[in-house]
Amino acid sequence: MTQKPRIISVQTVARTRLFHIEAVVLEFSNGTVVSYERLSASPQGAVLVVPMLDEDTVLLIREYAAGVHRYELALPKGLIEPQEGVLEAANRELMEEVGYAARRLRQVTSFTLAPGYFGHVTHVVCAQDLYPQRRPGDEPEEIEVVPWRLSELKKLLLQDDCTEARSIAALFMVRDMLREEDAGNA
Amino acid sequence: MTQKPRIISVQTVARTRLFHIEAVVLEFSNGTVVSYERLSASPQGAVLVVPMLDEDTVLLIREYAAGVHRYELALPKGLIEPQEGVLEAANRELMEEVGYAARRLRQVTSFTLAPGYFGHVTHVVCAQDLYPQRRPGDEPEEIEVVPWRLSELKKLLLQDDCTEARSIAALFMVRDMLREEDAGNA
Repeated sequence: MTQKPRIISVQTVARTRLFHIEAVVLEFSNGTVVSYERLSASPQGAVLVVPMLDEDTVLLIREYAAGVHRYELALPKGLIEPQEGVLEAANRELMEEVGYAARRLRQVTSFTLAPGYFGHVTHVVCAQDLYPQRRPGDEPEEIEVVPWRLSELKKLLLQDDCTEARSIAALFMVRDMLREEDAGNA
Repeated sequence: MTQKPRIISVQTVARTRLFHIEAVVLEFSNGTVVSYERLSASPQGAVLVVPMLDEDTVLLIREYAAGVHRYELALPKGLIEPQEGVLEAANRELMEEVGYAARRLRQVTSFTLAPGYFGHVTHVVCAQDLYPQRRPGDEPEEIEVVPWRLSELKKLLLQDDCTEARSIAALFMVRDMLREEDAGNA
């Protein structure tokens, strides 16, 4: 494995309400010195929930996405709060955005978004044994909940408003995981 | 379909060498007024290439990722240059980062990263019929090329350094697409 570059300096170049941008000067093991910019991320990271209403039905949400100025169909997600665990945050987001809580929660994996310039980490949690339970969130309008069959994932990917890479990767992983578990139980 | 929020104002709050952050004030159709911050993206977007060396072997790269300060195993990618087409950019990145060019290139889908606050779009291109062809890129050190079998995708996802959601989503989509094509030809 190549030796990691040595960090020569890290400097904040901009800080806004939500974002923190740093300039990093690095020396690679071959002597090359490079200056990069990177976005710092929330130290707790985020959760992305895959809520399974039954063996095949996942609950998606359709929500306004300000970055692209349109409604997007994706899995519920949100930042983990300080002192909150990953599974606890997943259950909270599920109650706030979907109106369900889960008796069974397990972490499947963790994703990065754009590791070249963004430190953000998203933990993926599969939620099962759901029951209706709503908790008020900070959403500006009611969120539409859209049940979808994992066995019809291909059809979902043809929808114009389902584009988020994290949700798509998580749906494939959980679909394959549940299929394998099902085959193991058969 | 819910009516899109009305944009009341857009204001630049920070601009650095790489990033452009805007504050957006919106009025939702129910009258709620909200202020968001969002990252603007390159107008051309980015490409992510799935280079297939043969029917089952994809070529990954292991490269330093400044956002998370470690080496990451992922698909080759990069920003599209002004006046460059999606497939042209994919072939250029392939030559620069992997040392191959492709006789067959086709766009599979387009991903967003974090549509809630980031306008970035990544176009996914499947590259086939490869031949050795190197073009000098702007990488600070030699990139390690790692062949991996799509039939062993599950094993890849267990690697600590393979975390990027776009690459994972693209690998699943291309794996399923090629399997279906293969079944159709059988």
